[in-house]
Amino acid sequence: MNRSGSQNIIDVGGGVGNSLGNTSDDDMVELEREGAPSTRPSGGISPPLDGSGLPEENIPGLGQYEDFHTIDWQRDIARDRMRHRLIVKKKKDSILELIRGAHDAWSGWLCVLVVGLCAGMMAGVIDIGATWLTDLKFGLCPSAFYLNKEQCCWSSNETVIDISGNCSLWLTWAEVMGFSKHESGAPAYMGLYFFYTLWALLFATLSASLVRMFAPYACGSGIPEIKTILSGFIIRGYLGKWTLLIKSVSIMLAVAAGLSLGKEGPMVHMACCTGNILAYLFPKYGKNEAKKREILSAASAAGVSVAFGAPIGGVLFSLEEVSYYFPLKTLWRSFFCALIAAFVLQSINPFGNEHSVLFYVEYNNPWLFFELVPFLILGIIGGLLGALFIRCNIYWCRFRKSSRLGQYPVTEVILVTLMTSLLAYPNKYTRMNTSELIYLLFSQCGVTNQEEICDYTNRNFTNVNQAVNIAEAGPGVYAAMWELGLALVFKMIITIFTFGMKIPAGLFIPSLAMGAIVGRMVGIGMEQIVYSYHGESLPWFFRGECAQEESCITPGLYAMVGAAAVLGGVTRMTVSLVVIMFELTGGVRYIVPLMAAAMASKWVGDALGRMGIYDAHISLNGYPFLDIKDEFSHTTLAADVMQPQSNEPLSVFTQGSMTLGEVEEILNSTDHNGFPIIISTESQYLVGFVLRRDLVLAIKALRNRMEDVSPDALVLFTTSPSTDSHLLGHNSLGEGGSNPVCPLQFSKIVDLSPVTIADKTPMETVVDMFRKLGLRQTLVTHNGRLLGIITKKDVLRHIKRMDNEDPESILFN
Amino acid sequence: MNRSGSQNIIDVGGGVGNSLGNTSDDDMVELEREGAPSTRPSGGISPPLDGSGLPEENIPGLGQYEDFHTIDWQRDIARDRMRHRLIVKKKKDSILELIRGAHDAWSGWLCVLVVGLCAGMMAGVIDIGATWLTDLKFGLCPSAFYLNKEQCCWSSNETVIDISGNCSLWLTWAEVMGFSKHESGAPAYMGLYFFYTLWALLFATLSASLVRMFAPYACGSGIPEIKTILSGFIIRGYLGKWTLLIKSVSIMLAVAAGLSLGKEGPMVHMACCTGNILAYLFPKYGKNEAKKREILSAASAAGVSVAFGAPIGGVLFSLEEVSYYFPLKTLWRSFFCALIAAFVLQSINPFGNEHSVLFYVEYNNPWLFFELVPFLILGIIGGLLGALFIRCNIYWCRFRKSSRLGQYPVTEVILVTLMTSLLAYPNKYTRMNTSELIYLLFSQCGVTNQEEICDYTNRNFTNVNQAVNIAEAGPGVYAAMWELGLALVFKMIITIFTFGMKIPAGLFIPSLAMGAIVGRMVGIGMEQIVYSYHGESLPWFFRGECAQEESCITPGLYAMVGAAAVLGGVTRMTVSLVVIMFELTGGVRYIVPLMAAAMASKWVGDALGRMGIYDAHISLNGYPFLDIKDEFSHTTLAADVMQPQSNEPLSVFTQGSMTLGEVEEILNSTDHNGFPIIISTESQYLVGFVLRRDLVLAIKALRNRMEDVSPDALVLFTTSPSTDSHLLGHNSLGEGGSNPVCPLQFSKIVDLSPVTIADKTPMETVVDMFRKLGLRQTLVTHNGRLLGIITKKDVLRHIKRMDNEDPESILFN
Repeated sequence: MNRSGSQNIIDVGGGVGNSLGNTSDDDMVELEREGAPSTRPSGGISPPLDGSGLPEENIPGLGQYEDFHTIDWQRDIARDRMRHRLIVKKKKDSILELIRGAHDAWSGWLCVLVVGLCAGMMAGVIDIGATWLTDLKFGLCPSAFYLNKEQCCWSSNETVIDISGNCSLWLTWAEVMGFSKHESGAPAYMGLYFFYTLWALLFATLSASLVRMFAPYACGSGIPEIKTILSGFIIRGYLGKWTLLIKSVSIMLAVAAGLSLGKEGPMVHMACCTGNILAYLFPKYGKNEAKKREILSAASAAGVSVAFGAPIGGVLFSLEEVSYYFPLKTLWRSFFCALIAAFVLQSINPFGNEHSVLFYVEYNNPWLFFELVPFLILGIIGGLLGALFIRCNIYWCRFRKSSRLGQYPVTEVILVTLMTSLLAYPNKYTRMNTSELIYLLFSQCGVTNQEEICDYTNRNFTNVNQAVNIAEAGPGVYAAMWELGLALVFKMIITIFTFGMKIPAGLFIPSLAMGAIVGRMVGIGMEQIVYSYHGESLPWFFRGECAQEESCITPGLYAMVGAAAVLGGVTRMTVSLVVIMFELTGGVRYIVPLMAAAMASKWVGDALGRMGIYDAHISLNGYPFLDIKDEFSHTTLAADVMQPQSNEPLSVFTQGSMTLGEVEEILNSTDHNGFPIIISTESQYLVGFVLRRDLVLAIKALRNRMEDVSPDALVLFTTSPSTDSHLLGHNSLGEGGSNPVCPLQFSKIVDLSPVTIADKTPMETVVDMFRKLGLRQTLVTHNGRLLGIITKKDVLRHIKRMDNEDPESILFN
Repeated sequence: MNRSGSQNIIDVGGGVGNSLGNTSDDDMVELEREGAPSTRPSGGISPPLDGSGLPEENIPGLGQYEDFHTIDWQRDIARDRMRHRLIVKKKKDSILELIRGAHDAWSGWLCVLVVGLCAGMMAGVIDIGATWLTDLKFGLCPSAFYLNKEQCCWSSNETVIDISGNCSLWLTWAEVMGFSKHESGAPAYMGLYFFYTLWALLFATLSASLVRMFAPYACGSGIPEIKTILSGFIIRGYLGKWTLLIKSVSIMLAVAAGLSLGKEGPMVHMACCTGNILAYLFPKYGKNEAKKREILSAASAAGVSVAFGAPIGGVLFSLEEVSYYFPLKTLWRSFFCALIAAFVLQSINPFGNEHSVLFYVEYNNPWLFFELVPFLILGIIGGLLGALFIRCNIYWCRFRKSSRLGQYPVTEVILVTLMTSLLAYPNKYTRMNTSELIYLLFSQCGVTNQEEICDYTNRNFTNVNQAVNIAEAGPGVYAAMWELGLALVFKMIITIFTFGMKIPAGLFIPSLAMGAIVGRMVGIGMEQIVYSYHGESLPWFFRGECAQEESCITPGLYAMVGAAAVLGGVTRMTVSLVVIMFELTGGVRYIVPLMAAAMASKWVGDALGRMGIYDAHISLNGYPFLDIKDEFSHTTLAADVMQPQSNEPLSVFTQGSMTLGEVEEILNSTDHNGFPIIISTESQYLVGFVLRRDLVLAIKALRNRMEDVSPDALVLFTTSPSTDSHLLGHNSLGEGGSNPVCPLQFSKIVDLSPVTIADKTPMETVVDMFRKLGLRQTLVTHNGRLLGIITKKDVLRHIKRMDNEDPESILFN
């Protein structure tokens, strides 16, 4: 077997995304080889004597990932660029190819357009459904059962609707059962109480059972998992159609059950499901995990956009909180997607107002400079409440995981629902829909709001144009303060138990509600302080600005600031929080108060516990999430982190001196996801890197083709001449001349340009490279000689160890 | 000389930022070594026998950069982390250190706070100054010369101010010269014309002379250079105090001269100057180029924020257009900075309205769905105009550079000013301040706007609350259309010649003005079409929405959309453009029209010319700017790009077998900025990398300390035992036992973990690494053996070559 004997080499593989190193000047061949490997139905190995690797020889599944594995961003993006080059090249060939090229160029925009449309419609359906189900707990519209209370009363054409929004067409369950309309005795009350609890239990049980039976991934808010997925992790089915369907239905039921949860977080998850499903219509995105994440980023922006009617806030939320890889192109597309979604939702108009958000408010009064003090205090309270909430919730979730409680998810939901219903009903502020509560607390007292909390003495609301004067709080306000205080305690406690149960559950609305309660209470307090000193006896810092009879304190604004503060304390959002809140109110006027509160809240929260609720849940579940925000500040070196640490040998292949049997032996005896390739055991200089999955698939394809592959066949991982000389040496030594076995050419599945670092590289640089380049692993060398390997999991475990946490809590690869 | 003889090694260097590889477990020593190298007054080498490198032995200037050089982000960020660790360690030592630690932790926020305050005040001063100077061209307030026209008329307490805003206290130059107030004859007109031109020439000459004499960097908008600087390039003095001072004065003069330029772009530059100057108050930022760029990003956000009163738009502008390295922390701080700046400017209230922007408008009518067609057409026109403008402007700038014209900058300014003045005065739309023109075109016809363009027949503006009905255009409107058309042509041509002259000049305002003219004309056209068909004869798509007598077309909205389209075509901004425009109008209602126009404009513009005006100017000036937005789509490999390409040898040092003389010989015979270090000439495996600057400084410091350094002294670049054996071999061979020269230990200035890539790495990955990691150079290896080096300049030149452009146009390192 001489140099020309290399014609007997059997060529395996080709078309693998990570065969980056093989890009030759003759890139047409490369492009051909790259064309959509997994669409080919038949796998097989290439015929011998041919090194070019035509598309027919591609092995299906190469370039894909296993479930619960980390993706390789560089490899996927390189695959996409190759695909793109192929299309650009082919464009000149025919009109069809030109159209295909144009379709490819537009598919990103088209995809986000469709995602935006679907997300908007989905949100509209869920909003309408949830309202209808919620109203069903209280009563029915007998003339048209499919209408909710508001629509039912619209259709009645009554001009006077009583204070609780009831009208003659709408019958409460008490009325349905035969009690008269204005009877307020114990039997009617108890009847309503009973029906309320009954419906709540029914809805909750249904919701939990649906999730348990059909789509276990539909539970929770989904944002921690989406963060993990967007950072480059595979969770199959998490964004699938079943999850979408079940989550849509069960979130409506869960909201209607009156549990302390919101549908805004799950809407982000559902929008991402929509994005994921629709991405499969566009192979450019559906077949490439890294590219798909661009669509998912846009979809999450659309989710927030429809949840709050805040497109810019949605984009910033996606940028700040959810996304990992966010190029500027994605920013622009996310904006487009969010805008389309908001536009569609606005056209559907589920809330019957023109603002596409449930709590749109506009205040008349500007805020005053001295009010920054109470706003900052609200921020501090928000940070404290947020940190307390996170700590308790994580404690309870950890208890659930470790105890037998976790085995009875439906029972848990039923119990919590029962508690919620029984305790919530007597207090009017917990009985009402949480969104309505927030709207009530945000709004100004005036013609449109004459609730108990607006019961001021000597205030006349008959004239809309007249300025609201500052007034003494009446007994209604004091009663409301007590009820609100109880509602706050109840919401806080019940939300701790609710978030993390096996039903869809968002945190935005409960957090906003808690914050709004605190804020409104502080606001009323401030108002009464100013009132009691009003006129000349005001302290100097009030006097200039609050001298008139006009109300200079808007308790609703305090509620809004408080809501932002608690939400900030829980989620640790910053810019996106302020922008969402400011889009809710429709004016730039209150950015400064919101910002002051958000900042105070974040600082206090961060001082008490480093992680926001989403990061805490990621950590609890052991997802391999490498946070972009955390700074790695230790002085360890790559050599301290790499595997193997002690004297155990590193599992490697040599480039041209191992037999198939030896390779399979190593594959079977280890569970590494990839193996470095070195020149030889004597000269441990790095040649390349091969992934276990690719190698296993290639060997399987080889065996499918030729059943009599000898385990003694030499495996070649390189095409360079130096290999041949090695190979010659080995062959002449090992097998003599009898029955010469064809060597197997595996070089196509080898990445000849793996990322390498020196052993003295500080870990902060390594962590930075993992984050910014989206690496899955890196090889550690010293003066060119291979020393070890660092995987993303090693990095994550090292970070945990450095932070004195349990490194074994990182579960996946 | 045996192993213990290494005690005779002379230790050089220490405290270098890039001695990252030397981080040891005993990091206290490392930290000590790191402490603020350039504050030490005396440089010198460490005494022999000591390897720890105490701070006293630091060489000043190590870790700094030369002018017109690229910075190394990784190295600077690592330096900052070391500094941070030192502070955290020391914190426990004393109260003083605790305070110092707290100051350090807060300094980022404090710095952006101060930057925001200063940027806001600066903008206020410039706005007031520019307005005063502009009014000076027309007349004077004799009673208080320091007041501008508006303030002068306020102080007069007159209730009726005539249509051009004149009042009795304000005297035009014609009146000052003795003509009566309402004389409108030729002499008065010519007198005003003469004074207008005279003042304009005076202001322009002064402006150009100031720039030429004191601060040549003050010219232009500054945004191309700021983009380059933020991408990691050093231009000393570009953001200095002289530039700030001269630019502030000369932008006021240039605006007042009536040239077709705006002060908004220069305001970004001036805000960055403020940021740069204030960063020196905080050593954390002032002494670290990479960290300083975080402050500059925030400052540029503040610049846009004060220029347009758009804080969120400013942050997005900084993110999308200007910044390069934009971590989330910077996002939050930029937001804070932008908000503070806007708040301060609003408190100063230079325009006398409460909105801190010159053209605040709010429309009454919603836009209609079919209007998307004209909006898209406006977008296409905007893209065409933008691309045309860029092409002509670049052509002219290139001509200026290559011809003798470039040698007479002041003469050029005077000539262009003369042309501008003579041509602008006769047309009222070019005579007025460009900002006022934009405001006029944006505004609705109504009580507050009764200009010629609002001359409709049968329209009565006496009642504010009455809806404006749709009406036939009167003769005034037709006259205005002609004048506006001429104004558009004039603005377009004169701006091409103006932008790029050696005076401060922004492009935002001229672009907005051009777009507003186009938009208003299209809007009036649409309005008249709808009017001519109004009532039942309207086409079906109009009918439902435009049936009433009310005006359903707002020409002002078209002007706004047109302005966005042209600005988008010129700058290729996307999200930030839409957000800025939407913040100008204060409502989310018109986001969809703005977005449609911006998108159409960008696509048309990109199809006609890849680069926006700023990128085109960066390319024209040959700055080494590696755009994050462009995708590298070629299939070349690192081996094709690296230096050396042919057979010429790579300049390298060996780790322990070169004498000082040999090292200096290589330093003198080459001009590379850094040199790889290999094991030996026989075994070319990579050890590390040393920067020329560090090495030259270290040798200089050595000679300062010991004048009799023998050129035969061995230079050691490593501390590993293998060196010692090499050294022993060399020493015993070369010098025998006579007069043993101490070897010089240079290992502290060696980076033992340079970034390396394999020769087969595709260039797309290499470009990605340069962008994301902020590399200055990377070393190319094959199986661990050093092959060559790729610098940022090589990458940029390769990109140019691949795009069939002149690679030699990249000028700097």
